[in-house]
Amino acid sequence: MSEPTDPTSESQPAEPARPRRRLSRRALLGGAGAGAAALAAGGVGIAIGSADSGSSSSSGAGDHVVPFDGEHQAGIATAAQDRLHFAAFDVVSDRREDVAGLLRAWTEAARRMTAGRPPGPANAVELAPPDDTGEAFGLTAARLTVTIGFGPSLFDGRFGLAARRPAALRDLPALPGDELDGARSGGDLCVQACADDPQVAFHAVRNLARIARGTAVIRWSQLGFGRTSSTSRAQDTPRNLMGFKDGTNNLKAEDRAALAESVWVGGEAPDWMRGGTYLVARRIRMLIEVWDRASLGDQEQTFGRHKVSGAPFGGRAEFDAVDPARLPADSHVRLARPESNGGAALLRRGYSFTDGLDDQLGQLDAGLFFISFQRDPDAFVKVQSSLARDALNEYIKHVGSAVFAVPGGTQPGGYVGQPLFA
Amino acid sequence: MSEPTDPTSESQPAEPARPRRRLSRRALLGGAGAGAAALAAGGVGIAIGSADSGSSSSSGAGDHVVPFDGEHQAGIATAAQDRLHFAAFDVVSDRREDVAGLLRAWTEAARRMTAGRPPGPANAVELAPPDDTGEAFGLTAARLTVTIGFGPSLFDGRFGLAARRPAALRDLPALPGDELDGARSGGDLCVQACADDPQVAFHAVRNLARIARGTAVIRWSQLGFGRTSSTSRAQDTPRNLMGFKDGTNNLKAEDRAALAESVWVGGEAPDWMRGGTYLVARRIRMLIEVWDRASLGDQEQTFGRHKVSGAPFGGRAEFDAVDPARLPADSHVRLARPESNGGAALLRRGYSFTDGLDDQLGQLDAGLFFISFQRDPDAFVKVQSSLARDALNEYIKHVGSAVFAVPGGTQPGGYVGQPLFA
Repeated sequence: MSEPTDPTSESQPAEPARPRRRLSRRALLGGAGAGAAALAAGGVGIAIGSADSGSSSSSGAGDHVVPFDGEHQAGIATAAQDRLHFAAFDVVSDRREDVAGLLRAWTEAARRMTAGRPPGPANAVELAPPDDTGEAFGLTAARLTVTIGFGPSLFDGRFGLAARRPAALRDLPALPGDELDGARSGGDLCVQACADDPQVAFHAVRNLARIARGTAVIRWSQLGFGRTSSTSRAQDTPRNLMGFKDGTNNLKAEDRAALAESVWVGGEAPDWMRGGTYLVARRIRMLIEVWDRASLGDQEQTFGRHKVSGAPFGGRAEFDAVDPARLPADSHVRLARPESNGGAALLRRGYSFTDGLDDQLGQLDAGLFFISFQRDPDAFVKVQSSLARDALNEYIKHVGSAVFAVPGGTQPGGYVGQPLFA
Repeated sequence: MSEPTDPTSESQPAEPARPRRRLSRRALLGGAGAGAAALAAGGVGIAIGSADSGSSSSSGAGDHVVPFDGEHQAGIATAAQDRLHFAAFDVVSDRREDVAGLLRAWTEAARRMTAGRPPGPANAVELAPPDDTGEAFGLTAARLTVTIGFGPSLFDGRFGLAARRPAALRDLPALPGDELDGARSGGDLCVQACADDPQVAFHAVRNLARIARGTAVIRWSQLGFGRTSSTSRAQDTPRNLMGFKDGTNNLKAEDRAALAESVWVGGEAPDWMRGGTYLVARRIRMLIEVWDRASLGDQEQTFGRHKVSGAPFGGRAEFDAVDPARLPADSHVRLARPESNGGAALLRRGYSFTDGLDDQLGQLDAGLFFISFQRDPDAFVKVQSSLARDALNEYIKHVGSAVFAVPGGTQPGGYVGQPLFA
């Protein structure tokens, strides 16, 4: 792909760069400065860090850029960023070429934004709407990743794709804990934007929604304010809104063999899914006020771990081995572990959310926006089915659900899903 | 006030401290370590930084503690933190002593949480609900501030306070741009929690709501994901979701004379308001999709500033003087400047928000959660009335509104509002 160079964005001279925000979009937009010169020479030159690098879990910025192109899409085995903006889209066009064109445009914009650049080539035309909405000028790339997926409904026949639907991609069956809201479920396409700065994640989704105009509209979206999973051994285990460490035994980016076994699809999937995986999203509402009235003992029995240390019952420290015999039969950790589910292991990558008050109940609408990646969504179904007996069910309900096929990564010039549409 | 010491929180031994998170709650909770020893000696000892210190605007954590006690409440002239959780409460008890008791309990919990400690003294009793919900264990204080205010309705007679209502504290009149939702407006009490880590801000509001049980319930709440104001000369000017720098000419903490003139109440207020101010909150929905279709020229004409540089029309850099003759008559900057409003100056301290999708419109429910502090809410009314002609009105609507009297600060052992209730 030939990258157009960025013109200076307006006639005002650039301000002097502030020392704290190196390699920012502002510098990249600056008129005659080194940033513009580098762009004119076609060099991005700021791809420090890598998809697998750990990061300070609480760093709000950081100059890190996660490469967009690669064998797999970024945002899966990438060390989990702090913030999330997730959006599901419905396609409103009935033309296959519109969908393919959208995926190309999204890919090009995402490739630019994840490098810390505006989504479009120009922002200087007075008579046209800006190519960039602008709220991320001056911010770094903040390890932004954009991950794109296809829902089962994309293969319903509107676009001639029915015969190419992977067998594994179908709506999830009814599951224990389901109290689903259709308006928070499903979608033809999804965009998962993760970054260490929430404004950067929001900016990405907003600009992709703007680019989609006429072809796709947002069906539902979710802001996640704090990661609840570590996906790299370099990261601390974060706490969910129940106050417990979440995902101590999560799959980690460093476990390449385990990812090959449980996350990336193999020969069982269609060719166009090579390097891909499946994303399950569940909006899990926590009944926070009820939980907060439970005793510490009850809370710990519910999980089978100690609250402050995170140690499993019978252990002394967080990463001590789980001895299922020491855990209550209905404890979450005992029921959810791979050994209780025929080896089904998920790469969890969820976020805490709050969306103000629940109108009906007058209680905080908060909880876990669960995201997992797995080689087959059936692995999630197995685990969630086991959780029918979970003591945690007294305190949670699943109010949104979606599943998406996430194609493999791109090479420069290509676009996400190209092998499916080309 | 005598501070109870923190017991070890459970029988598990503390994990070794991770190097990246110094002075965390985890260390404070740790059994026999130095943190516990310092607490046992009655010393907090971690009050580094100060309410007026600048901070890296994008730092997600930082070990800074903003002192809770002082002449004024923290969270007003404090350099604006990155994240917000704001909640308005309705009092459900009809007993004055319950309200006073709640304010004492809130103050004690806030004093502890802003020092990076759990809100209650104990977290170790198996048979009782924990004093701390736990999701902030392991995080720093993240410059948390908790600011408490009293709505006009608190003085309606239920609590014998009607005669002590300040004349300036009354519901705002109908204003241009109002499309108010009663469920997002008003409230007897408010809590503004700001921190550089959103989980710390959420944790504060959640625990204060838990402590209020039986006396007050949340009426509405709002998460703000990114600050849109700088309130210290050490901070960069952030951008709002329209992509423009917001609050270039905001009052700053360093302008002590201006704060004394325009923010802190003087002899005109009742004695119990000494050191206090008034908080106006407005949930301003931006019609993002409409804005994004406006040309760059139109967007810049709307504000009267250039988008990327932030320079006023006729100027070359952000902080160049505004020449009103160069600005369109209906531009936001021209109409909102103090000189256009009899000198009315506000200390703005707002945050960008998004709450997913608007059910009615299918558009992003996003915008600015405007907060301003002023000596008299009438200053806000003056400015907002001038904005009746604002070109910006095509792209925004005010959907929530509230006003609160914010009493002055506390000394150790005292509580917010004590001079009113004692």
